[in-house]
This record gives sequence, C-alpha cells and structure tokens, in this order.
Amino acid sequence: MDVYRDIVEHAIDEVLPKAGERPAELSEAMRYAVGTGGKRIRPLICLASAVAVGGRAEDARYPAAAIELLHNYTLVHDDLPAMDNDTERRGKPTVWAKFGEANAILAGDALQALAFAVAAKAPRNVVEIVAALGAAGVGVVRGQVEDIARACAPGSDVPSVLGVPDVSFIYTHKTADLFVAAATMGGYAGGGDEARVEKLREFALNLGLAFQYEDDLLDGDSPYSREKTEALVRETTAAAIAALESLPGDVSFLKSLAEKLVGRTA
Amino acid sequence: MDVYRDIVEHAIDEVLPKAGERPAELSEAMRYAVGTGGKRIRPLICLASAVAVGGRAEDARYPAAAIELLHNYTLVHDDLPAMDNDTERRGKPTVWAKFGEANAILAGDALQALAFAVAAKAPRNVVEIVAALGAAGVGVVRGQVEDIARACAPGSDVPSVLGVPDVSFIYTHKTADLFVAAATMGGYAGGGDEARVEKLREFALNLGLAFQYEDDLLDGDSPYSREKTEALVRETTAAAIAALESLPGDVSFLKSLAEKLVGRTA
Repeated sequence: MDVYRDIVEHAIDEVLPKAGERPAELSEAMRYAVGTGGKRIRPLICLASAVAVGGRAEDARYPAAAIELLHNYTLVHDDLPAMDNDTERRGKPTVWAKFGEANAILAGDALQALAFAVAAKAPRNVVEIVAALGAAGVGVVRGQVEDIARACAPGSDVPSVLGVPDVSFIYTHKTADLFVAAATMGGYAGGGDEARVEKLREFALNLGLAFQYEDDLLDGDSPYSREKTEALVRETTAAAIAALESLPGDVSFLKSLAEKLVGRTA
Repeated sequence: MDVYRDIVEHAIDEVLPKAGERPAELSEAMRYAVGTGGKRIRPLICLASAVAVGGRAEDARYPAAAIELLHNYTLVHDDLPAMDNDTERRGKPTVWAKFGEANAILAGDALQALAFAVAAKAPRNVVEIVAALGAAGVGVVRGQVEDIARACAPGSDVPSVLGVPDVSFIYTHKTADLFVAAATMGGYAGGGDEARVEKLREFALNLGLAFQYEDDLLDGDSPYSREKTEALVRETTAAAIAALESLPGDVSFLKSLAEKLVGRTA
C-alpha cells in the first residue's frame, strides 16, 4: 500500500508542471488542485489492476497519474461558482477561491489535457488506454449534467425525488466511470487481455456503485431507505469481489479495498 | 477543398453525441458549440498534412475532428462570464448564453475529453498523435493564462504594452500550438516519419504566427507598428511555405492556405 502510494505520488509530481514554470500562476494552480491530501483511490485501483492481471504496478504509473489528474480537474470545475459554488475543499480554499475563477477554469482544462498526454506514456496498449480515459472523461460529464438537471429543480438546492433509472445513470457515470477507467487502464498497462480487463471493469463498476451508496449513507441523503441502501452496498461489494476470482495475479489489494469501503466512516 | 470539407464535417458529425442522447441538454450544447459555421482551418490543415507526407486525407479524419473539437471547447470556455464574458459568437448566442454557465463549462469539458477519444481512433501512430494533442491542449491554456495575466491589468479591459518575449510566448501557445498539433497529427496519421512531421511542425508554427499577426492587423490591435506587423506576416508566411519544399506529397493545399492568409479580410 505504501509502495503503491509512493509510485502514485512520484508519478503525479513528475508530470505536473514544475513550480514557477511559465505561466507561474497556472503551474501553481495545477499543483494546488492535485494537492497531496487526497486518498488517491482511483490511481491505487489502477496500479493494483496491473498487478491483478499479472503485470507490474510500475507499468501503470502514468495511467494512474492520469486518472488522478482527470478526477481532480472535475473537482476544480465542480467547485466553481456556476456549479456547486464551494469555497472550501479538504479544509482549504478551493482553486477558484484562491486563484480566481478564470484561472480555475483554465487550470482544470489544462489538467484534463495533461491527463491524456500522460496516459499516452503507458508502456503498451495506448490505444485502449486513451479510449478508456476518453470514455470516462465524457461519461463523468454526462453523469454530472444529468445530476444537475434531474436532482434539483432549477435554481433550487432542494433535491427532487430521483427515479431508479436516474440514480442508476447518474451513479454509473458520475462516480463509477472513473473507477472503471482506472481499472481498465491499469489492466491494459499491465498487459491484460480483453477478457481479463472485462473482469476488472465489472469489479470497478460495482466498486464505484458501492462507493456512491456508502457516500449516501454517510451523508444521509440516499434516494433509498437506509436498509435498502445498506443492502445495495453489500450486494455491489460482493459483486466486485466476485469479479476478481478468475484473475491470475495478486488481487488482495483490490479485495481489501472493496472490503474497507463497506462501513467506512469518511 | 470541398472534398476535404466533406470529410471534416462527416467525421465531426459521426463522433458528436446524437441529438437526444442522454442527457439531451449536453448533447445539444456540444453539437451547438461545434456548429457548422466555422472555417475549419485546423482540421483542413490536418487532412492536408496527411496528403503532404504522401498519405490519404481520409486517414487523418479522426485527428481532424479531434482538433476541431478541442478548438471549439476553448472557444466555449473563453466566452464564459468569468473569462471574456461574450454573449455572441458568429452572430449567434454563445453556449453559456443559450444553455447556462454550468452546462457551458461541462459541454466544453466533454468536448475536450471527446477530442482525445476521437484522436485515439487514428489508423496508426496513436501514441504520437495523442501526445501532440495533449501538448497542444496544455499549451493553449498556458498561452491563454499568460495572455490574461500579461495583456491586461487585473480588473481592466485596457491592454498594457506587451513586451516582445510575451508576444512570442502568447502567440506561439495560444494560437500556433493548435495549428502545430493539427499538422503533426495529420502527418503521423498519414504515415509520415519524424523528419517529415518536423517539417510540418515548422510549417504550422509559422502559419499560426502569420494567422495571429494578420488577426492583429484586422483588429487594429497589433503590439507592433502596422509596417512591422505586415513584415512579420510576410516573413512567417514565407517561412511556412519554405518548410513544405522537401515533403513528398501534394502540398498545394497547404501552400494556398498560407498564401490566402496574407491579406485576408475576416
């Protein structure tokens, strides 16, 4: 776990613009946005997926950095005044609150472009890896737009009641798509074939859904009853773990990640 | 020229989400943003660059669509209230004026992700093609941030005097980087080797600078005197055309494009 985290942090640090690189305000905003405080769940899934197909974690370091850059750009844009209008994240000023709105939009844009440039540095299967990141990059926006359009009446903060098809669409795209891209890219970077990568996708989709249902429990805003939501967390977690069974490499990290998500407190 | 335009419009239409595809407001905003009114200079450069190295224009159709998606996302974000605050472009409401600010931010984000997914569909040299698009995607933001930071005093619309190093940095990145990516991707998609692609880069960098100097003449806001700016247009145009000499394929389209830019009126 600590080895994986070191690989992730080193890869992220390597690919971000150096402090002071022109224009300095952009380099600083990009570094600030990606920070060091996150849990790095997506890049860790990416490395562990390379291992799960029998490859090396190191081979997935650039896709791992890429998915974290992409994830963080979505947070930068989500926080903007025209979106969630949040001034704090993880106890610090959000990027727009610190660097201004224009720089936050642009830093997010640059982080997304950089994510793709970095993903293309994977040692093999770059076509599949970039396609997976691209699908997630579009998908996460589709989920977000659907969430804004369906979850709140226009101009209101009060969530309306979401139908089951809406919840499924939004959770799949807004949350699970990035988990799926992380696992898919890691599997391909580790040399996995299509059948094994498909198992990783199944794992990650279910893990992403479990993660989102658990989030709803923690936030107390599940569209379902507490009992129903707890059942959904258990079912999706079990499905995630079951998908790992046939993989040839060490799946212990992915399995323990899924187990830890059940009943997490933050 | 008409053949090239057809290839470009068909590729763009093919890769954009279909009207009504969920969420419909996103699909509609993305289609509206890319529109049909643009000059499509960058994708045409991309196709013609494939031909210039001896390849087929068709082979560059996905990279061509990709560079146009990327270019249009930058326009969507540039028009936002926090940036240029423009309500009209090409005589129609801008994306944020029509679909709202949040949807404009998100449609731009999705267009960028889609650009990379589409570039990865090129028939060969995908690693080089995605790297070129990624470099341009970061570069165009670097140019834009530098432009905002250097060209105007904070909170003012009055341009300050730009130093020559600033102009060079801003024009190279804000304008020429997308031209360079278009030519580079086209050259690689057409099967060009590194030496030939390098000639295309030289062509496109000079063409991009010529394009920007000519823009300044048309807008009457060149940082240089009129005579100096006209001389710069001539010099960069000549350098662009000279770079085409050693290429094995038909360079007539690229050459006439460079010649048409000199003295254009819009």
